[in-house]
Amino acid sequence: MDWGKIVGANVRRLRGERGFTQEQLAHDAGIDVTYLRGIEAGRRNPSISVLGRIATVLSVRPGDLLIT
Amino acid sequence: MDWGKIVGANVRRLRGERGFTQEQLAHDAGIDVTYLRGIEAGRRNPSISVLGRIATVLSVRPGDLLIT
Repeated sequence: MDWGKIVGANVRRLRGERGFTQEQLAHDAGIDVTYLRGIEAGRRNPSISVLGRIATVLSVRPGDLLIT
Repeated sequence: MDWGKIVGANVRRLRGERGFTQEQLAHDAGIDVTYLRGIEAGRRNPSISVLGRIATVLSVRPGDLLIT
């Protein structure tokens, strides 16, 4: 199972539903927008603390970003 | 929220319920036992791919390791 791709698809979907740009989400989560783009593309392997920060901004639980 | 501590407590609890030693879980998940001990102690910030490998060995979903 490629959890990077699953997280990426979930982040991209939830960000769109909440009307955030990549720049807004990256800023509010305290990560670089280049890193966020890599996460959304499924090319990165983020840590649980980064997952937690993104989840907080998107008002979901971190586990929701791992749903298949 | 300290996701490292939450993951650590969940891994330790689920590993105990399934009757795995730290050595068995670390071996089957392909990580060093020292690293697993650090995860269980809440001192590490594992990646989602490590989370996925531990979850697979414990027969849970990775999101279950992030439940508060």
